[in-house]
Amino acid sequence: MVPTERTRLRRAREKARTSRADLDSVLAAGFVCHVGVVVDDAPMVLPTAYGVLGDTLYLHGSVASRSLVQAPASTVCVTVTHVDGVVLARSMFEQSINYRSAMIYGIPRVVEDPEEKLTGLRTLTEQCAPGQWEYARQPNRKELAATTVLALGLDEASVKVRTGPPDDADTPDAALGLWAGVVPMSVVRGAPVPDPALPSDVRVPSHIAQMSR
Amino acid sequence: MVPTERTRLRRAREKARTSRADLDSVLAAGFVCHVGVVVDDAPMVLPTAYGVLGDTLYLHGSVASRSLVQAPASTVCVTVTHVDGVVLARSMFEQSINYRSAMIYGIPRVVEDPEEKLTGLRTLTEQCAPGQWEYARQPNRKELAATTVLALGLDEASVKVRTGPPDDADTPDAALGLWAGVVPMSVVRGAPVPDPALPSDVRVPSHIAQMSR
Repeated sequence: MVPTERTRLRRAREKARTSRADLDSVLAAGFVCHVGVVVDDAPMVLPTAYGVLGDTLYLHGSVASRSLVQAPASTVCVTVTHVDGVVLARSMFEQSINYRSAMIYGIPRVVEDPEEKLTGLRTLTEQCAPGQWEYARQPNRKELAATTVLALGLDEASVKVRTGPPDDADTPDAALGLWAGVVPMSVVRGAPVPDPALPSDVRVPSHIAQMSR
Repeated sequence: MVPTERTRLRRAREKARTSRADLDSVLAAGFVCHVGVVVDDAPMVLPTAYGVLGDTLYLHGSVASRSLVQAPASTVCVTVTHVDGVVLARSMFEQSINYRSAMIYGIPRVVEDPEEKLTGLRTLTEQCAPGQWEYARQPNRKELAATTVLALGLDEASVKVRTGPPDDADTPDAALGLWAGVVPMSVVRGAPVPDPALPSDVRVPSHIAQMSR
């Protein structure tokens, strides 16, 4: 993870994190990224599923396939963001958002090797539903051929984090006597909702029950 | 909201929504978007705060200011995504994610008029913390000058939604006897956390208490 001209933070340097552990931590906390591609000279930002294995970020490539066909070997920007809270300051100017965000640049590789494709899909699945790859029916040859998986290195990346209370406790605004602090936000998973078509005697397997928290 | 060549969905047409009400609903459910800009021929995807007022989406423009200086009057793509659940199918091929996503294209206008700038900032604040604009200290002239607000029309937009159970109930995979359904996901706001520097006699105002749910 080497800072380059475009990943070096221009603003708010105090929020920059530079270790690989910080990057891994932000990426491990989600499974949907926003991938930016350039199509006809304009940016296109698409939500898509991702998974990380070692130094590789795998992307479910169907959504980005149009741009890749038009412009193979072009750079993408993958951004993963977690919103952790609304920071309510004494002044509007200091109002902020607590968040963790990772940005990765690179030229994605279309995974052609069937074995690596399976690895990529397994990684995507494990990222959002650990245990499901072994439980459900794995892709057959035809399904595998119909699926696009992209691989992106994690070399050119940056991480930005804001945590904690507002920044105006030591300003004249503190004398206003206003409440200041954070309303925390988090993502929760509810109890599994069975497919209405499911026979009533099919139990929720433990790996799915454990997804709810 | 008129579909154009780039907002017309190529895949999964059944998931497209075309009404303005659908767009408003997706935008109203959040306050952080991912804005895509082209910098040095490469895409850059940045998380930033937004707010909607009528037909205008206001963006807190600081994060995008670098690209705007380099390439004024260039197109951006703003994407707002809510992840609603993991869709666990009988086969990996049908595994999916329930989500609501809006994508808006346009050339943002830098808001210069001080009155509209205040309106834009108020809109940004109301989107994530209703009532806070009247409660906290509003920006002074110097702060206002130091803030960049962008305005984007909602004309060129698309909305994509996936809801409900997996799609393989009526395939041969149903005979596998596997559990299938959805693990729902949602964003919750916790109890307000006061700034440690706050005097203990400052009560949480009702508009902030109401943010937690």
